[in-house]
Amino acid sequence: MTINRRGFLAGSAAAVAGAGLVRAAQAAPARIPPPPREAVLKLSSQLGLIPGKELPEKLAWMERAGFDAVEPHGNIIGQEKELLAALRNTKLKVSALCWGSAKGAIVSRDAATRADAVVQFKRAIDTAAELQSTGVIHVPAFSAETDRTNQEIREIVVDTLPAIGEYAVKAGTRVLLEPLNRKEAFFLRQVADGAAICRDCNSPGICLMADFYHMGVEETSCLGAILSGGAYLHHVHLASKTRVLPGQDAEEDEPRYLDGFRGLKLIGYQDYCSFECGCRGNREEEIPKSMAFLRRMWEQA
Amino acid sequence: MTINRRGFLAGSAAAVAGAGLVRAAQAAPARIPPPPREAVLKLSSQLGLIPGKELPEKLAWMERAGFDAVEPHGNIIGQEKELLAALRNTKLKVSALCWGSAKGAIVSRDAATRADAVVQFKRAIDTAAELQSTGVIHVPAFSAETDRTNQEIREIVVDTLPAIGEYAVKAGTRVLLEPLNRKEAFFLRQVADGAAICRDCNSPGICLMADFYHMGVEETSCLGAILSGGAYLHHVHLASKTRVLPGQDAEEDEPRYLDGFRGLKLIGYQDYCSFECGCRGNREEEIPKSMAFLRRMWEQA
Repeated sequence: MTINRRGFLAGSAAAVAGAGLVRAAQAAPARIPPPPREAVLKLSSQLGLIPGKELPEKLAWMERAGFDAVEPHGNIIGQEKELLAALRNTKLKVSALCWGSAKGAIVSRDAATRADAVVQFKRAIDTAAELQSTGVIHVPAFSAETDRTNQEIREIVVDTLPAIGEYAVKAGTRVLLEPLNRKEAFFLRQVADGAAICRDCNSPGICLMADFYHMGVEETSCLGAILSGGAYLHHVHLASKTRVLPGQDAEEDEPRYLDGFRGLKLIGYQDYCSFECGCRGNREEEIPKSMAFLRRMWEQA
Repeated sequence: MTINRRGFLAGSAAAVAGAGLVRAAQAAPARIPPPPREAVLKLSSQLGLIPGKELPEKLAWMERAGFDAVEPHGNIIGQEKELLAALRNTKLKVSALCWGSAKGAIVSRDAATRADAVVQFKRAIDTAAELQSTGVIHVPAFSAETDRTNQEIREIVVDTLPAIGEYAVKAGTRVLLEPLNRKEAFFLRQVADGAAICRDCNSPGICLMADFYHMGVEETSCLGAILSGGAYLHHVHLASKTRVLPGQDAEEDEPRYLDGFRGLKLIGYQDYCSFECGCRGNREEEIPKSMAFLRRMWEQA
């Protein structure tokens, strides 16, 4: 079955012309409207994975390998100038800022802790804005950080995040909620749930990411998950089934990446896909192989 | 964009032939593999909606209107013979048995209540089997029926249901988990979550349904939700955005039904789509209009 934009109108016309011959209850070919823009595959990585000791060495390696962007960790806060200076010698951009949960402070039972969480969050947003990053990755709470129920956390998140989303929009960036898997967080384990939280927050600054490792644990369909994420999706984490390089668990990775990349094409995805994983074997050799695997999956999807 | 089974191989061949001309990071048209079987739209309804006083009158009306099946309520348990006798005068089949939660007994804190829940569940399965029904609709717990957390309920469900699923398979039917919306149940609100529970239960007797009314509250994408449901999906409830007849909230129903029906076509859906809704206006006139709306959406999807 081919989804082909040029064929869309022709297919519709054929369906109309042939309607009289088709019993209503039979399946005509399904038509999915084209995305607003054609999707792109832009690769990024966290720095821990990348060969090299110092930042400039790592960035130079990434550029040679064909990466488009780098995903800094939250520890970059306060050291933005160093990263920006190093990036100036390359064509690399900053994808997302991998911030996190601030120890679950945003859903704390203590009001002062919750207020401090908002201050910390805004500081991370300032950094992301300074780096022209696509967004601040946020986990409302890892399981070990909260004794609240799913419903309580959801209510606090939907109450608290819109104001933070507005702040992010004004700064020129956004918040990226990250669904994890049950071993890390019982709250927010699926992309569709994250998308529904974004919809309920109703702020253009509250958006979403998807992670191929967590999806492998929690989703039955990477395609379904990414279509549910839809226009809220602005970052993707890449890993194999066992959280090494994409493609290093080839048999399990191929169908998942084909499925997920079909989804990214159907939604017209415009942001980065970024390595968050370990590596089995020599990184200098294995990372380029993994990048080639991803580009092959993208072509085939 | 057209998804066309006949175009699938041709599209693949073209992609291979043209690969040398395409930069790896650009989007080729997305290809979704064809479903194992072509999807069908088979319409069913609960009896409360149908004009007529007595069962035979209602069934005769349904047959004239072009329904394929009827969805009995759990109160049919013990009165299977009456329904079977009435059905013998028609071509109608039984779709799902709309059973429910047995007051949340399956997640009760009382062991005897939990044990009784299993007995009740098996009784419903026996009825479904006798009626050659496609499955027993089950809600683990409405919110008012439990003080347990989301994680506790999930654990009990995944522990308890597989044995019930085996019983259902032996009887020739299945369990159909129903995701509801937050006003009815905080546990199991999205189709992707239900699909993940089915996967974790790992019993061919534990399956899933989707409901267009609940999806309207909880999902960002009916297409994404139904693709996540995938092969676990064996029943669908139909309603408009405000839970009257599909199409009676035309502006909101059209995109949702196009989207959802595209999903059913892509997964090769083989089971029933069944009215569970009220009616605005004269039922004799409005139900056929709604059926025509559904067939039009199916053709256009």
